[in-house]
Amino acid sequence: MHRDKIELLLDRSETGFLVNSTEKMEKQRVNGGEFNQCSDEVQHVALDIGGSLIKVVYFSGNDCGSFEEQETSSSKGRLDVPNGNQNYCVLKGKLHFMKFETRKINDCIEFLSSKKFRCHDDLHHEDHTSDSHIVKATGGGAFRYADLFKEKLGITLDKVDEMDSLVAGANFLLKAVKCEAFTYMDDKKDYVQIDHKDLYPYLLVNIGSGVSMIKVDGDSKFERVSGTSVGGGTFWGLGKLLTKCKSFDELLELSHGGNNRVIDMLVGDIYGGSDYSKIGLASTTIASSFGKAVSENKELEDYRPEDVARSLLRMISNNIGQIAYLNALRFGLKRIIFGGFFIREHAYTMDTISVAVNFWSNGEAKAMFLRHEGFLGALGAFMNYKREGLADLMSHLLVEQLPKGSIVADLNGNDSIHCSVRISN
Amino acid sequence: MHRDKIELLLDRSETGFLVNSTEKMEKQRVNGGEFNQCSDEVQHVALDIGGSLIKVVYFSGNDCGSFEEQETSSSKGRLDVPNGNQNYCVLKGKLHFMKFETRKINDCIEFLSSKKFRCHDDLHHEDHTSDSHIVKATGGGAFRYADLFKEKLGITLDKVDEMDSLVAGANFLLKAVKCEAFTYMDDKKDYVQIDHKDLYPYLLVNIGSGVSMIKVDGDSKFERVSGTSVGGGTFWGLGKLLTKCKSFDELLELSHGGNNRVIDMLVGDIYGGSDYSKIGLASTTIASSFGKAVSENKELEDYRPEDVARSLLRMISNNIGQIAYLNALRFGLKRIIFGGFFIREHAYTMDTISVAVNFWSNGEAKAMFLRHEGFLGALGAFMNYKREGLADLMSHLLVEQLPKGSIVADLNGNDSIHCSVRISN
Repeated sequence: MHRDKIELLLDRSETGFLVNSTEKMEKQRVNGGEFNQCSDEVQHVALDIGGSLIKVVYFSGNDCGSFEEQETSSSKGRLDVPNGNQNYCVLKGKLHFMKFETRKINDCIEFLSSKKFRCHDDLHHEDHTSDSHIVKATGGGAFRYADLFKEKLGITLDKVDEMDSLVAGANFLLKAVKCEAFTYMDDKKDYVQIDHKDLYPYLLVNIGSGVSMIKVDGDSKFERVSGTSVGGGTFWGLGKLLTKCKSFDELLELSHGGNNRVIDMLVGDIYGGSDYSKIGLASTTIASSFGKAVSENKELEDYRPEDVARSLLRMISNNIGQIAYLNALRFGLKRIIFGGFFIREHAYTMDTISVAVNFWSNGEAKAMFLRHEGFLGALGAFMNYKREGLADLMSHLLVEQLPKGSIVADLNGNDSIHCSVRISN
Repeated sequence: MHRDKIELLLDRSETGFLVNSTEKMEKQRVNGGEFNQCSDEVQHVALDIGGSLIKVVYFSGNDCGSFEEQETSSSKGRLDVPNGNQNYCVLKGKLHFMKFETRKINDCIEFLSSKKFRCHDDLHHEDHTSDSHIVKATGGGAFRYADLFKEKLGITLDKVDEMDSLVAGANFLLKAVKCEAFTYMDDKKDYVQIDHKDLYPYLLVNIGSGVSMIKVDGDSKFERVSGTSVGGGTFWGLGKLLTKCKSFDELLELSHGGNNRVIDMLVGDIYGGSDYSKIGLASTTIASSFGKAVSENKELEDYRPEDVARSLLRMISNNIGQIAYLNALRFGLKRIIFGGFFIREHAYTMDTISVAVNFWSNGEAKAMFLRHEGFLGALGAFMNYKREGLADLMSHLLVEQLPKGSIVADLNGNDSIHCSVRISN
């Protein structure tokens, strides 16, 4: 009986794989619909396997709400309750965010395995075709590592388009989560509440290993209009070669204590300390990134790694900010939203991007950032379960779980937030 | 008598300083005007002192034409003969192009000194104010090193605005010199003859240590609309740190034998060898410059310097091409002309810039290059003597001296071309 109920849930939602398959689940009728009252832990996983990082979003349920509770909640929230008397289960639980380095993909596989996700072998008791073990996955690695996941975990990666996922993830966050978007300038973070009706169009700039720039015109209406190969992979790759740092985070940390003026050639360096005021360039403007290395009789070892890291970060942030602004201008987009793991709520990165957008737009445009910046693709892939009945309400309940107007925790680490999902039956 | 004539020339033209002041110069009347028939060697110098390089343009006269000759020439050429019966001297000679590294500025000073330019001490016989020793100079170094030139050579640098110079130099070349502009694609150089009436507007992209992007609307009508700090100084500076190359040319040469795919992360690397065809990215497109260095357990020493240099060149060329195109698009400019010493007629650089412009414009825009690309600023500063009567005719005679339709020598080295200048009396 127990097994049947779980499988019913699986069949209808096609939500991938479950944990703790021995846990109970009971059904009852509410308002003419059938409702699953449950305290089972159910985990739905989505992956974004990029060139440098694997981002994992998974949900673990640990409690079950009632239909009445859900209705009450929805009246406070911003998302509509779906029409009709549908049968569904509300699962309370946690949405978890994890990341792994792509080169250490076995760590990710081991983690998924260790979490006792119900996999291949479990289901084989009843079903010898492993095709039913489907996990939503996006990013190039969903193609590249498909065979590996199949072999090691018996999982079939259901590939969700990368741009679709980024946009779905960003739209979800911007519409459903309070205190999600913010501007950053002079060490000051200002949360921006965006009116849903005024959300589109905007430019989504996702800074992963490379950078994608996407004009978003509606819920599923978007176009990748530009990009640049000078992205997070460049910062980390070049930074690793230049500083011998072992990780992206170490490199970021290093840059924090650096001074880019040691290596960058400033306008003042060329103009003998003066501004080039006729064309609006202050003496402190960077004329040439790494340009000072040209004229000095120094080798790499003679520079402090901190200064190198800072120059590199500034060059790349500034460049992305500029190209993003030029694209926003091209399509008349006033809102530029930056996401992707490169940013990582790193103050100096955000500040440089903000300054670049401000500089090139003469103060007319502002860069915006997202609290969950690194997980757009993974969240978007997770949202793709919606097609199979999951997650409609999650966005609503996410809103409810976050304290209004408060500053919430950084979710870019291996973190989690309380929330609920609704699964139709 | 002799001295008077030379000084008359100096006084009227204010062309800086002369060599071989003992040589003869005679005057005669032609067509109601006074004409200097002369075989004197006269040198007019202009400098462009940038962050990394000093570009020198100087004219050495060695023969003297007649007014009739000049009229005959002008009827073939494209520039109008100035109205009125003016007195002037036509000096045949050579226009020389030289470059020095800015950090070796003393080499430049020594060179100028060795050429026996008539300097401070010579003139002090008659004139104890050295203010009359004026040399046109542009670039930030014209400010930074003004005192040094004064002290070592007794020269006052007459500062010409950098953007003014670049535009004047480019306009001069585009209008007056045949076989100046060309496109470059697939190792093929195609000269472009631009109709003077259809020259404006265009985007001038000058790639020096940094990059300036200038919208040129007319002879002296322009605006610096953009730029980037990722320029020649970045290539050279970062390249020096990464490869230990001793010079820009060595680094360029090195890049020629490299393979960027060793270090760059391609779309195919992320997508398991596939294209990301939905958004038009081929598997060979660079997804992340230097991105492959992230996932490999290699240090800088484990990479071939050739490959590093190539990735760097490709990253920077591509980036400049993209930002240039976005700016051209912004102002509806169909013609993008690249200049500056970064290019140096280097096939791979031009090819990458061309491909970038072609890629981002979907084939609608083409990058154009200039044969004298590195000397725009210095030529522009030289043209500034025009205000004092020099160089009106030089542009005309430059045209005459170049064989029609032929491929002429690369002038980016320390080279010279035969030409003439006209000096009014």
